[in-house]
Amino acid sequence: MIVVMSLDAKEQDITAVSQKLLQAGMLYQKAKSGDRVLFNVASEPELVRGLSLESFSGVEQVVATWATLPLVSRKQGRVNTVVQVEDISIGDGNISIIAGPCAVESEEQIVQIAHHVKSAGANMLRGGAFKPRTSPYSFQGLGKMGLCFLKKAKELTGMPIVTEVVAIEQLDLVCQYADMLQVGSRNMHNYALLKAVGEQRKTPVLLKRGMSSTIDEWLSAAEYIVSSGNSNVVLCERGIRTFAKKTRYTLDLSAVPVVKARSHLPVIVDPSHATGHWRLVEPMALAAVAAGADGLMIEVHPKPEAALSDGNQSLNPKNFNQLMDKLKKLAQALEKEQ
Amino acid sequence: MIVVMSLDAKEQDITAVSQKLLQAGMLYQKAKSGDRVLFNVASEPELVRGLSLESFSGVEQVVATWATLPLVSRKQGRVNTVVQVEDISIGDGNISIIAGPCAVESEEQIVQIAHHVKSAGANMLRGGAFKPRTSPYSFQGLGKMGLCFLKKAKELTGMPIVTEVVAIEQLDLVCQYADMLQVGSRNMHNYALLKAVGEQRKTPVLLKRGMSSTIDEWLSAAEYIVSSGNSNVVLCERGIRTFAKKTRYTLDLSAVPVVKARSHLPVIVDPSHATGHWRLVEPMALAAVAAGADGLMIEVHPKPEAALSDGNQSLNPKNFNQLMDKLKKLAQALEKEQ
Amino acid sequence: MIVVMSLDAKEQDITAVSQKLLQAGMLYQKAKSGDRVLFNVASEPELVRGLSLESFSGVEQVVATWATLPLVSRKQGRVNTVVQVEDISIGDGNISIIAGPCAVESEEQIVQIAHHVKSAGANMLRGGAFKPRTSPYSFQGLGKMGLCFLKKAKELTGMPIVTEVVAIEQLDLVCQYADMLQVGSRNMHNYALLKAVGEQRKTPVLLKRGMSSTIDEWLSAAEYIVSSGNSNVVLCERGIRTFAKKTRYTLDLSAVPVVKARSHLPVIVDPSHATGHWRLVEPMALAAVAAGADGLMIEVHPKPEAALSDGNQSLNPKNFNQLMDKLKKLAQALEKEQ
Amino acid sequence: MIVVMSLDAKEQDITAVSQKLLQAGMLYQKAKSGDRVLFNVASEPELVRGLSLESFSGVEQVVATWATLPLVSRKQGRVNTVVQVEDISIGDGNISIIAGPCAVESEEQIVQIAHHVKSAGANMLRGGAFKPRTSPYSFQGLGKMGLCFLKKAKELTGMPIVTEVVAIEQLDLVCQYADMLQVGSRNMHNYALLKAVGEQRKTPVLLKRGMSSTIDEWLSAAEYIVSSGNSNVVLCERGIRTFAKKTRYTLDLSAVPVVKARSHLPVIVDPSHATGHWRLVEPMALAAVAAGADGLMIEVHPKPEAALSDGNQSLNPKNFNQLMDKLKKLAQALEKEQ
Repeated sequence: MIVVMSLDAKEQDITAVSQKLLQAGMLYQKAKSGDRVLFNVASEPELVRGLSLESFSGVEQVVATWATLPLVSRKQGRVNTVVQVEDISIGDGNISIIAGPCAVESEEQIVQIAHHVKSAGANMLRGGAFKPRTSPYSFQGLGKMGLCFLKKAKELTGMPIVTEVVAIEQLDLVCQYADMLQVGSRNMHNYALLKAVGEQRKTPVLLKRGMSSTIDEWLSAAEYIVSSGNSNVVLCERGIRTFAKKTRYTLDLSAVPVVKARSHLPVIVDPSHATGHWRLVEPMALAAVAAGADGLMIEVHPKPEAALSDGNQSLNPKNFNQLMDKLKKLAQALEKEQ
Repeated sequence: MIVVMSLDAKEQDITAVSQKLLQAGMLYQKAKSGDRVLFNVASEPELVRGLSLESFSGVEQVVATWATLPLVSRKQGRVNTVVQVEDISIGDGNISIIAGPCAVESEEQIVQIAHHVKSAGANMLRGGAFKPRTSPYSFQGLGKMGLCFLKKAKELTGMPIVTEVVAIEQLDLVCQYADMLQVGSRNMHNYALLKAVGEQRKTPVLLKRGMSSTIDEWLSAAEYIVSSGNSNVVLCERGIRTFAKKTRYTLDLSAVPVVKARSHLPVIVDPSHATGHWRLVEPMALAAVAAGADGLMIEVHPKPEAALSDGNQSLNPKNFNQLMDKLKKLAQALEKEQ
Repeated sequence: MIVVMSLDAKEQDITAVSQKLLQAGMLYQKAKSGDRVLFNVASEPELVRGLSLESFSGVEQVVATWATLPLVSRKQGRVNTVVQVEDISIGDGNISIIAGPCAVESEEQIVQIAHHVKSAGANMLRGGAFKPRTSPYSFQGLGKMGLCFLKKAKELTGMPIVTEVVAIEQLDLVCQYADMLQVGSRNMHNYALLKAVGEQRKTPVLLKRGMSSTIDEWLSAAEYIVSSGNSNVVLCERGIRTFAKKTRYTLDLSAVPVVKARSHLPVIVDPSHATGHWRLVEPMALAAVAAGADGLMIEVHPKPEAALSDGNQSLNPKNFNQLMDKLKKLAQALEKEQ
Repeated sequence: MIVVMSLDAKEQDITAVSQKLLQAGMLYQKAKSGDRVLFNVASEPELVRGLSLESFSGVEQVVATWATLPLVSRKQGRVNTVVQVEDISIGDGNISIIAGPCAVESEEQIVQIAHHVKSAGANMLRGGAFKPRTSPYSFQGLGKMGLCFLKKAKELTGMPIVTEVVAIEQLDLVCQYADMLQVGSRNMHNYALLKAVGEQRKTPVLLKRGMSSTIDEWLSAAEYIVSSGNSNVVLCERGIRTFAKKTRYTLDLSAVPVVKARSHLPVIVDPSHATGHWRLVEPMALAAVAAGADGLMIEVHPKPEAALSDGNQSLNPKNFNQLMDKLKKLAQALEKEQ
């Protein structure tokens, strides 16, 4: 049994629980996960439940075993989490569209595309300033300058910014500019970074699925963030690694209903990275929404053929307009707002 | 270069092509694929094209290399294949629904479910009489008796029958009852069976993707059937084997637009086998249609909890009704008929 | 509980078991797997064991559940199966080497390579006469003529022949020439073929692992053959399909100790098909033997650069000699004979 | 073409190269990878070679394209890298054995096992002080206390220490205790960490393959470290994620000869994490050496059944002795020293 203390539990709350357990003769291990204290109690569930610890001050919940992920798992009666990014709500039944280029390349590029995707109906702007790249010699993003360009685009369009953080050292800097932090697929197992984005608490997190992660590992990564103090987590399916060769990864859309059955967190889908081909983005975006996704992350570039990274998978503005038109009809049919 | 002779090419047509190639001093290999003759010509494409062989009697086409699959590949100007199964057209823009139990268990069971799925809007009835099973000790189907029960269900409802053939020896028997032959995932590489279902020519074929087949291997399997004389082939995506654990297989929906870009054959999707859980069937069925599938194959059982095989992944009649209602709305939004 | 009757059980033996079960008030299902009768008894294990059916005439064994594979699973006290192919013993502690070209191409080719591999120390000759090929337009083998060439090579060298059977229709023909039948990876799920090679009983079978089969599915395929009457089955690991790209498949050498712990059947390894590159054959052949394999299947071609199929993965005679020298030293170090 | 400057290139060397390129009218991009400067020159290879830049002071090499990994790739005439860890040489033809528990649990535990593995013939001691764990609630290692226990074990046995670093913040601390830094599978794509372990230059690095990484991605990760200033990198294959279920991962032993053909870096194998079962460690360790591995990383625990992590895959001292005996014989047969 795990006794999960709340984030604002006081020292005396924690002591009270310890004493109760000791009086009851129960062995326990006290653990700290980020700013949160947990007690792992080595006794029969019924005996622990008999102590009525949930009524103690500072106790958030008492859950069955270490195997469960107490904070991200769906529980009877628990409402779905809605993550608020400025005035945008993710997970409230609407379809949230995050659009923009893979990488910020210039002020002109990001401002131009921001105006475009906004007018087409997108809710948030994406753009990488720090890019994790397989080769040390590939373009690694404009860094702080890229963040400044994103800020400019936000000032001009009002759209909240989603951008990736790839290292703890950049976290403070990125938090000054980002309205939502992206943790990329390659960092899903970077537990130090997960804890750090959890501990900063303020800025919501978009957590991409690791390219070879099971659903349980993905939810465990989310549990790292939430247990460290930040419950504003949105999950993002972006394709898994398989033997298939015609797409960059295999988009695992069944992950959407599977995750929604197991967790209260919102789930969105990135068909651009998953497929690697712009022609496949529209059908897979529509499929993702039909499968129940709470939103989409779509790469759009003013001139995909000239992009510094991932041009092949970016929609041009015209094709993005067409996708948004179809999404509107689809959302109506499924009785969602878009 | 390959010179593809038509199925009704005469002996003299073939001789005429041989002689032309010999006169031009070109080395070639004459091959037979089922009932069809092909010439593999070892010369420069431009020289072969200079012979204008496409104007010869009995020549169907002249294509670039062995690497291509001349009969199933999409070509400029080629219209999509529409496969006719009695009065049902697959691939004409409508969404075709094939529904029924995994296995035929009794006359009562199959007749009852046939009436139900028909009234809910399904177009064809599925049900296995010969079941390929991993264990030699599992229920292997009712065999000929199962086929008779399917015939009865057809007489009472008018719905065409789709049923699996697992061995050449049963082919004649199954063809007497089936309106469409299913070649299952485990037999996609059974080239002798592929040729046999091609050579019988009359009954259309539903070709499921092998659970670890690439798109090219799947289309090559279709080429076996078509080159043997049967061009009425419908492809069916049914999930691929990956590391993911929460579903039986990983449904690869991006295969739908990928195949449609490369081939003129219709593509349908089987979300029941792919996911292995009835709760995931509805979201993935909707997603498949949104991704562009020409139809769906859905397992429905009057009492899934009592099914002799795959009960876990079967919808009960009520849930099938609900799926059909949502599909109707979705089809309208996507401007398809259903 | 399953009561497994022996292959030579008489009608009265079977009746005696039925009556005993009926008298005891136990429900059962009588199943036939090939020529063998099994009773699936729906009662508590202890009650069934109380009937002492193992002492009845014609009863081979009584095993715990359908889940087990009663005939191929390792059991306490059961010795390892040694499969006899003419005078060659596979699974007796020696390392058996099966070598030869992917496909028989001419009498000269197969005779030449047979003499070579024999003098280098190989025990059996491989060569495909019927080739399962992904494309219908690829070279599909010389058929019966190829079998005749193999026979000639056997007459001249004394080496037993291993060759593939891809369809039931060819089984009688192939059995006239082959000393061991190969069932290829693509047919591991072709249950009709598995039963047929089981029912012919006489010729041993080399069963390759399906390219995406789990260990359990592979052993189930072996159970199909053994339960149909042929207990002379050798398993062959040949690589599984994964995301890795530098090799044709990923050779799963841990399958060797895993299978040997679960089954009493011999296991050999084919590093040629698994890797697809001749340079990788030697290191992976040595590794396979170090992992505990009972033998190897190696492609050798007199002129790999001119082979009609799979030349890239064939050793030339000189490199095969070098491999055999290293294998001898390795076998001595591991205290095996080679 | 890429001009790779050496790590000790002076400012004037860099300027000289810039000027030469400008004079020749060639466009270039100057990049910094860690402490190293590179020029990406957008001209024809022959023209760039005509400038004879390799003769310039401070130029290490001029290589063909960005696609190559100039620092880790095998080149004609380049000798294999031998990585020196105190007095142990990895990659010199001997088989290096790194052994110890998954996690340091107490001073007594690590000292006891250190004495044992040393007397059995191991060369280096492994033990985790910082453990990356899937669940935030699992035992995450003893941290600094664990490092102190490792130091004690080194003082008493003389064995160099290999231990994992999971975050840049711990790097200085870990470097004070470790003779070799391990970058784990989950951090292979953590490029910030790769750069940091490269930039510290002093301590050699053991780089595990990401569980779903291709060979190219793995070598690119090594290129991150080397281009940042640390050329003492040893690669470690530890299993990849596939559909197979009987082992924790699938050990991809063909990666050993593939990597050795492409890179001059040493490669070792970790059969403990790959298989997840102690019974499979011995056969796969022997297979790894037969496949050409330069060494092994083996988990050994005084009492595996009481281990705080990964006990299932740890050898006990007696089984480790037996493995070392067999390795000695195998190494002799393969004409390696062990």
